[in-house]
Amino acid sequence: MSTATLLLVCPDQRGLVAKVADWLYTHAGNIVHADQHTDATAGLFLMRVEWELAGFTLPAEQIAPTFAPLAETIQARWELHFSHTRPRMAILVTKQDHCLYDLILRQRAGEIRAEIPVVISNHPDLEGVAHNFGINFHHVPVTAATKPAAEAHMLALLQQYEIDLAVLAKYMQVLSSDFLAQFPRVINIHHSFLPAFPGANPYHRAYQRGVKIIGATAHYVTEDLDEGPIIEQDVMRVSHRDSVADLIRKGKDLERLVLARAVRLHLNNRILVYGNAGRPGVGIRTVIFD
Amino acid sequence: MSTATLLLVCPDQRGLVAKVADWLYTHAGNIVHADQHTDATAGLFLMRVEWELAGFTLPAEQIAPTFAPLAETIQARWELHFSHTRPRMAILVTKQDHCLYDLILRQRAGEIRAEIPVVISNHPDLEGVAHNFGINFHHVPVTAATKPAAEAHMLALLQQYEIDLAVLAKYMQVLSSDFLAQFPRVINIHHSFLPAFPGANPYHRAYQRGVKIIGATAHYVTEDLDEGPIIEQDVMRVSHRDSVADLIRKGKDLERLVLARAVRLHLNNRILVYGNAGRPGVGIRTVIFD
Amino acid sequence: MSTATLLLVCPDQRGLVAKVADWLYTHAGNIVHADQHTDATAGLFLMRVEWELAGFTLPAEQIAPTFAPLAETIQARWELHFSHTRPRMAILVTKQDHCLYDLILRQRAGEIRAEIPVVISNHPDLEGVAHNFGINFHHVPVTAATKPAAEAHMLALLQQYEIDLAVLAKYMQVLSSDFLAQFPRVINIHHSFLPAFPGANPYHRAYQRGVKIIGATAHYVTEDLDEGPIIEQDVMRVSHRDSVADLIRKGKDLERLVLARAVRLHLNNRILVYGNAGRPGVGIRTVIFD
Amino acid sequence: MSTATLLLVCPDQRGLVAKVADWLYTHAGNIVHADQHTDATAGLFLMRVEWELAGFTLPAEQIAPTFAPLAETIQARWELHFSHTRPRMAILVTKQDHCLYDLILRQRAGEIRAEIPVVISNHPDLEGVAHNFGINFHHVPVTAATKPAAEAHMLALLQQYEIDLAVLAKYMQVLSSDFLAQFPRVINIHHSFLPAFPGANPYHRAYQRGVKIIGATAHYVTEDLDEGPIIEQDVMRVSHRDSVADLIRKGKDLERLVLARAVRLHLNNRILVYGNAGRPGVGIRTVIFD
Repeated sequence: MSTATLLLVCPDQRGLVAKVADWLYTHAGNIVHADQHTDATAGLFLMRVEWELAGFTLPAEQIAPTFAPLAETIQARWELHFSHTRPRMAILVTKQDHCLYDLILRQRAGEIRAEIPVVISNHPDLEGVAHNFGINFHHVPVTAATKPAAEAHMLALLQQYEIDLAVLAKYMQVLSSDFLAQFPRVINIHHSFLPAFPGANPYHRAYQRGVKIIGATAHYVTEDLDEGPIIEQDVMRVSHRDSVADLIRKGKDLERLVLARAVRLHLNNRILVYGNAGRPGVGIRTVIFD
Repeated sequence: MSTATLLLVCPDQRGLVAKVADWLYTHAGNIVHADQHTDATAGLFLMRVEWELAGFTLPAEQIAPTFAPLAETIQARWELHFSHTRPRMAILVTKQDHCLYDLILRQRAGEIRAEIPVVISNHPDLEGVAHNFGINFHHVPVTAATKPAAEAHMLALLQQYEIDLAVLAKYMQVLSSDFLAQFPRVINIHHSFLPAFPGANPYHRAYQRGVKIIGATAHYVTEDLDEGPIIEQDVMRVSHRDSVADLIRKGKDLERLVLARAVRLHLNNRILVYGNAGRPGVGIRTVIFD
Repeated sequence: MSTATLLLVCPDQRGLVAKVADWLYTHAGNIVHADQHTDATAGLFLMRVEWELAGFTLPAEQIAPTFAPLAETIQARWELHFSHTRPRMAILVTKQDHCLYDLILRQRAGEIRAEIPVVISNHPDLEGVAHNFGINFHHVPVTAATKPAAEAHMLALLQQYEIDLAVLAKYMQVLSSDFLAQFPRVINIHHSFLPAFPGANPYHRAYQRGVKIIGATAHYVTEDLDEGPIIEQDVMRVSHRDSVADLIRKGKDLERLVLARAVRLHLNNRILVYGNAGRPGVGIRTVIFD
Repeated sequence: MSTATLLLVCPDQRGLVAKVADWLYTHAGNIVHADQHTDATAGLFLMRVEWELAGFTLPAEQIAPTFAPLAETIQARWELHFSHTRPRMAILVTKQDHCLYDLILRQRAGEIRAEIPVVISNHPDLEGVAHNFGINFHHVPVTAATKPAAEAHMLALLQQYEIDLAVLAKYMQVLSSDFLAQFPRVINIHHSFLPAFPGANPYHRAYQRGVKIIGATAHYVTEDLDEGPIIEQDVMRVSHRDSVADLIRKGKDLERLVLARAVRLHLNNRILVYGNAGRPGVGIRTVIFD
C-alpha cells in the first residue's frame, strides 16, 4: 500500500481539521492514520495525516502544488512524504559496533525503511562490519587541527551519497554548528537520561552519583551539545552490585533500543519538531505521532 | 472550560473525518482533542472528538438531535458526553481498603471527575472509611442462597443513588449475568496480568509458578469471569526473595494504580469498546484515546 | 518472629563472612537473611545479617557488648537493630497531602513498621488529616527571618516525641546544615530523577525540556541540596500530550511509591550508606540489601 | 581473575553459612560474591559463593573432593564451576535470525562467556549467518515421521561438539522427553509472559485478547511444554494501534533481551533450580543470584 503523509504545524484556529479533511475528501483520499495535537501554551496546532495514494484523484507530483494554497491560508509550515520513496541514511560510528549492527540488521529485517549506502567513521575499526553487509565505508579521521577539513569531507560524502538522514550511532565527535547549518538532519544517541549527565562519561558519573536507574536518550543534534529536541528515552534499573563496566554493558541494550525507535519514528515521518526558544515555557520539543 | 465529547464507531469509509469535522466547523466548534483509529481487520473507524461549548452555536441540548441524522448516514454507534455533568460512581468493596481509599482520595484531589455518593460491601468492615469521608455505606451480605436477593438489593441501591458507573474495588463476589444485563457499566480490578491467573488466588498461583513479574488488570465486567475487555494493565518485577505475602503487598500498589487509571479513562470518556465475538481475529476490545 | 539485624561495613579482607557467621553459630543463631557486598573500588566489605532471637543463646542486651570486640578486630562500623523495637517516625509536610496519606495508610496496613506520633508542617492545612488518624500536629511556620527559631522548635519537637526518623513528605523547605548536624536521619522525596532537575519546579523544567520520561528520587538529606545518597528512584513515560498539570498529577503516583519504598527499606534496616567524598570515583552512596 | 563458584541447596539448619565460610577460610579463600536464600515454605537453604583461585591453598582439581565430605554432612546437592573453563553452547534455530545474531554478537563482545561451535536448524535458511561468523551449521530437518531419527542426529551433534548448553533461539520444534532425558540443559525463549499464552501463536492470541502489555519468558525446557522453571521475563506496553505485525516486531526486542539475560545468568552460574512437584505450594522454580 503506497501512501502520502502530511506533517503540518500552524497557529491554532477553528476549522483546521475540517479544512484539511475536506481537501483530502475532495480528492477521494482514504485516511489510514490521522493524529492531531494542540499546544495551548504555544497556541499551535500540529497534525499528521496519512492517506492511500490508490484512488486519490491527484497524481503524486500534483499533491504539493495543490495543497500549497490551503497551507498558505492557514499559515502552515508543512512537509509531504511518500512511502514509495526510500530515504537514504548514513551511519556515523567510532569504534563501538553494537548500534551499527543493530541498525543494519533492523534494516535488513524490514523494520527500518531506508537505504544505508554508507558508513562513515573517524576510526578504521568497523570497516569489516560495513563491508560484510555490502555497505561502503569511509574513514575520515578527525583531530582538532583537521576538524574543518574532516567535516568538509563528510559533508561531501553526505552529498555524494544523496543522504537524507545521518545517524550518530555512538559517533564520539561533536559536530560543529557549521556542519549542522549545512546538514541539519542528524539523530544522536546519548547514553544517559538527559538532562542528567550531558557530555562525557555519563556511565562513570552515574556510578559515582549512585543512581538506581540509568537511561539513554535519542535526540536531534543542535549546536548546543546534548540540548537538541528529545525523540525517545528509556531507562533500566541498576543496583549497588553494578560496576561501571556493568552500567556500560546494560546501557548498550538501552542505546540500541532507543536509537532504533527514534530512527524508525523519523523515517516513518512521525515526528514534528517545534518550539520557540525565545518564548518562556516553550522549548524546542517534539511531537511524536505514534 | 466546558466541553462536549463525541465517541463514535462506524464502518470504515472515505470522508468520515471530513464529515464530522465539517459538522463541528459549521457550528463554530473549537476542537480541543481529536483522535481516530481504523481497525483494518474489523473494517471499523473509531473516533473521539472533544470541543469547547463556549462559542459553539448549538445549545447543549440541541447537539445530539442535530448530530443524529449525520450519524445515521454513516451507520455510527455513538455517545455524547458533557464535561459539566459529573458522573455518579458507586464503589463496591469487601474487606480490603487500599483501592477504596485510593479512589476517594483521588476524587477529593480532583483527579477523578465524579460524585461518589455510596459505598456498597458484602461485609461491614469498611463502613468507617466511607463515613469518614461523608459517603453513604450499605452492607449487603451475599451467600449462595441469598445471592439473587442481594443482587436485587444492590441494583435498587444503584438506581436509588442514580449511579452511572460501578467500580469493583476488590469486591470479591462474582456478579451474575442477570445483574450485568440490568447494570452493565462495571469496572473490575483483577490482581494478575490477564489472561494469566484468572479466577481465585492469583498471587498464590504466581508464587507457585515462580514468575518473575506480577501484574494487575482493570477491565469491564462481562458474564465471562475475567474475560471482559481490558482497559489497563501494569506489572512489577518480583524475585525468589518475595513470599506470597510480599506479592500481595507489592500487588496492592499495582491494583491501586491500574484501577485508578482505568476509572479516570472511563470518566474522561476516553474508552471505546468494540468487537465482534463471532468474527475470528476480532475479540471484544478497547480503544483508549489518551 | 523476633529478630536481630546487624549492618556492618569494614575494610575488605579474607575471612569476614566466616568470622561473623561463626560468631552467630557459636550462639546458636538461625540466620533468616544474609547478604554481602564488596566494593572493590573502595576496598570495602558491607554486610547485612538477620537472625532469630528465639533460640539465640545471648539475651538481647548482651548482643552488642559481645559483638563489639569482634567488630573492633575487623575495624567495622556497625549497627544492631531489633525487630521488636518500633522506630518512631515524624512526617514533615507543607500543603500537599498525597504522601502523608500514603505513609499513614501503609503504616495502618502494617506495611511500614513504625510509630507515627507527630506530623509537623510549616502550614496549618493538613492538621485535619493528622487528627483524623489520631496523630499530633504541630504548625511551625518558617520565614527567612524566623528560620533559626523555627528549626530549633522542630528539633525540640523531634526530641520531645523521641523521633528516630524524619520523613520529608513534600516538605517544601530546605533544612539547614545546623539542623542536619543535630538530627541527621532525614529522608526526602524529590520530584525528579536526580541528578536531572535538582531544586525548584522540576516538573515545569521537565515540560520545558520536552523529556519523554519523568521520575522521582528518595534520598537521605545532606547539607548539599538534592545531593544526598539516593535510596530509590522510579520513572514513568510521558508524552507531548501531557501538560505541566499532567506531569504533576502523574508524578504524585511516583512520589508516593518511591518515598514509601525508601521509608520501608530504612525501617527494615536494609540500607547502608558509605563512601568517601575525598576519593575520586567513590561518592556517598547506598547499598540496598533487599 | 580466575574464580571458583559453588552452587548449593540443602535442608535448612543452623550453621550452614558458618560451615561453608569456614571451609573457604581454612583454605584462604577470598570471597568475591556470596548470596544466600532460605525458602521457608520448602525448608531449604540455597547458596552461591564465588572466590578467587589466586591464593586459595587447594589446587582446582582438589576442591571438589575436599568439599564433598562437608556437603555430605549437610545433605547438599551442589555444583562447582571454574571461570577459566569456557562452556560450549549450541544454538538451535528455525528461520528467524534475530536471537541468533544477538547471541553471537554478545559472545563476540564478551558479554556471554562461552564457545559457540555449532548452530543446528530444522531449516537451511540461516546457514549463511553461522558461516559468516565461522560457526559450523547443521541442517537437521524434522517431520512427524523423522522426529526420532532427527533427535538422535541432534543428540549426536551435541555430543560430537561437546556441548554443555543448548539454547533454543526461536527453534520452533518441541523436544521430546526422550531427548531431554539425554540432554537436559536446554534454555528456551517463549514469546509471551508465561503462564499467559503458552503454546502456538502467542502474539496473535495477545492481539485477539486485547492485552495492553506483551512479554517474553526464558525458561529451562522440561517435558511439559512451556511449563519449565522460569529464568527471566520482561514486558512492553502495546496499544490498540499495534497490529499483530507490530506485536511481532516489538516482541523481537523482548525476545532478544530476555533470552540473552537468561543465557548470561546460566553461563555465569547464577541460577539454582529447585522444588518439589509433589509438595503443594512449591513448584519447580529458580533462584537467581544476581
